[in-house]
Amino acid sequence: MPKAKVYVYLKNGILDPQGKAVHHILHNMNIHEVQDVRVGKFITLTFENGLTEEEVRRRTEEICRKLLANPVIEDYHFEVEMDQR
Amino acid sequence: MPKAKVYVYLKNGILDPQGKAVHHILHNMNIHEVQDVRVGKFITLTFENGLTEEEVRRRTEEICRKLLANPVIEDYHFEVEMDQR
Repeated sequence: MPKAKVYVYLKNGILDPQGKAVHHILHNMNIHEVQDVRVGKFITLTFENGLTEEEVRRRTEEICRKLLANPVIEDYHFEVEMDQR
Repeated sequence: MPKAKVYVYLKNGILDPQGKAVHHILHNMNIHEVQDVRVGKFITLTFENGLTEEEVRRRTEEICRKLLANPVIEDYHFEVEMDQR
């Protein structure tokens, strides 16, 4: 079935408290080579069969814009895989 | 600077309440072509310069195993980008 893999992340310059928390824990774990951590979302949408790639892309774009990403603070991109099974 | 892009997601078969919630909202939005939604994490680790790709891979693997993923319920994979700047 066609899948869209969607990546949603804070725009550059937007403070990422979750990333800062992970970074802090890495220091406590004695891992000092990491300079920055950003935490975003990775969403997999599985579509029904019978759609064209164009339809899957259009729907995914709409879902990102309306639901998954907050355009004020987040960017997103996605990849579509048209599975043959 | 070298970056590791880490994807953490629930293993197949593990119930994903956040994904179910998104799926439900899609139905309410009259989007019915989506059969399943899974929500995971997308984490970018930026490393300091001067590390080899092998070192970045080893550290990222360690960070995933010890901190970012819960191996009982989650799988992960990552990609490393060795930026030349």
